[in-house]
Amino acid sequence: MGEFDLIAKYFNRDTKQGIGDDCAIFTPTAGMQLCISSDMLVEGRHFFADVDPEALGHKALAVNLSDLAACGATPRAFTLALSLPDVNEAWLTGFSRGLFALADLHDCTLIGGDTTKGPLNICITVFGEVPRGAALLRSGAKVGDDIYVSGAVGEHVGQARLALEILRGNVEATAEELASVRHRLERPTPRVDLGVALRGVATSCIDVSDGLLGDLGHILKASSVGASVQTACIKGSLEFALAGGDDYELLFTAPSSQRDALQTLSNKACTRVTCIGQVTGELGLRVLDPTDKVIDLKALSFASFDHFSNNGNNV
Amino acid sequence: MGEFDLIAKYFNRDTKQGIGDDCAIFTPTAGMQLCISSDMLVEGRHFFADVDPEALGHKALAVNLSDLAACGATPRAFTLALSLPDVNEAWLTGFSRGLFALADLHDCTLIGGDTTKGPLNICITVFGEVPRGAALLRSGAKVGDDIYVSGAVGEHVGQARLALEILRGNVEATAEELASVRHRLERPTPRVDLGVALRGVATSCIDVSDGLLGDLGHILKASSVGASVQTACIKGSLEFALAGGDDYELLFTAPSSQRDALQTLSNKACTRVTCIGQVTGELGLRVLDPTDKVIDLKALSFASFDHFSNNGNNV
Repeated sequence: MGEFDLIAKYFNRDTKQGIGDDCAIFTPTAGMQLCISSDMLVEGRHFFADVDPEALGHKALAVNLSDLAACGATPRAFTLALSLPDVNEAWLTGFSRGLFALADLHDCTLIGGDTTKGPLNICITVFGEVPRGAALLRSGAKVGDDIYVSGAVGEHVGQARLALEILRGNVEATAEELASVRHRLERPTPRVDLGVALRGVATSCIDVSDGLLGDLGHILKASSVGASVQTACIKGSLEFALAGGDDYELLFTAPSSQRDALQTLSNKACTRVTCIGQVTGELGLRVLDPTDKVIDLKALSFASFDHFSNNGNNV
Repeated sequence: MGEFDLIAKYFNRDTKQGIGDDCAIFTPTAGMQLCISSDMLVEGRHFFADVDPEALGHKALAVNLSDLAACGATPRAFTLALSLPDVNEAWLTGFSRGLFALADLHDCTLIGGDTTKGPLNICITVFGEVPRGAALLRSGAKVGDDIYVSGAVGEHVGQARLALEILRGNVEATAEELASVRHRLERPTPRVDLGVALRGVATSCIDVSDGLLGDLGHILKASSVGASVQTACIKGSLEFALAGGDDYELLFTAPSSQRDALQTLSNKACTRVTCIGQVTGELGLRVLDPTDKVIDLKALSFASFDHFSNNGNNV
């Protein structure tokens, strides 16, 4: 099967914004800004060679939609560049099914891309919209703000890493235990509705891809503030919860005056949020145990995710 | 060096639209549509492992800018996703130098992207703007239109393939002969100014990446027309000129009433254009020798470029 046939068969769905010209033509909504994110997924680094292609199609788009969510953007469209070692029709069928199921859920249209032969590599660039000036950034956290994460820490946040360590053979678990957490690693749910609802409420936002503390560090640095984080609410492994990575939950700050508003929008978006700490004027990050004693982070056995270090949560 | 350091050192140039948040924020110009193109370049497929990294940085962006040119779009911004086997600072220095030299030439800003560890893979997504409804498409060619290509056929068009075949050892040439054509393969010039000037003049347009006849075929199919092409003006190898690929010249159609306008805009854009034939109502593609005899295309020894076939111009 040639490149053009492959595109036509698996990825051309005869949408209004069609595939075929040298460029996709995209009409921005008047008054909106575009939020753009690009993520590249590599076999052996971001996923195992034997991963279910349908789950992979889901995840490749999910990690990008999660970036849109972190900016409060409404998904509109994406491009897909795909390097494939060969034309495996079963793989392509599963991959495109997982990809389009998630895309359709968010009205996010495939508008273009590229296919080539080479080591398996998936690069998606996604486009979302926000009203001008309304994008959530990392730089707006204010002293006294509450710090929230979507989901429950130690359950939603941390389970992707737990699944990874089970698959790696580093953590013993029954097949049932693996099954109960594996979807958190392989089929993360981008918090798109929550992100959109947080416009005008959150003062800063990021998605948890590198690990909770690492990503909180990005907010603190960009906002020139510090934070104290309470671990009392964390279930399970502290390390997986705080530095596991690959969670794709939203980590954000909001003034305490927004507590009621947050509860309401969290209900509307059907996404739980958990307050895990406060923004402080004193720089640095303090993590407190249930008795408010500072935990020595160096004692945690792995640091946050970095694709060119060896301590990350890469597969 | 970690991922964040690598981005900061080589790719963060402190522009207004900075790198750092989960998404890049892009403000479209009011009344304009976006043209978006994504190309993925793989080692061993699109470039030799020992290619000059500066030339590669240039070419990776050039092939995308060429897609914008084919739509008549003015470049505005791009994202870069990069998979690297290791952090080679000399390579990164050269690559980013070539990339940014071309980007600066066209006021095209790097607004975001991704880096990861893996087999060398470069995926650029580029954003350009056209007034609403003004994008050049493949589908507008009309019976009686002239067919043009930028550059001289057999010189500009065809030389990239000649360089490739010399490098492959399939064509004998002196070092000087190679040097005189190698830049056509490794440092193609995207015809951005010409593309913008063709808005409202050309009825259809495509860039020559797969080979002149193959790309003309895309226009004919999209426009439901045929064509006759004259080879009288072609210098050098007919095969390289007609089916070489990797040329990144613009192939377009325009009504004969626009001949004077085309001469003027070609001069203004400092880009030569050559009329190579006419659009016909009779479907199919006829290639005529200097005595107007139809040439049997099957006698040409290679077909147009297709990344999943074995007859392409991949390295």
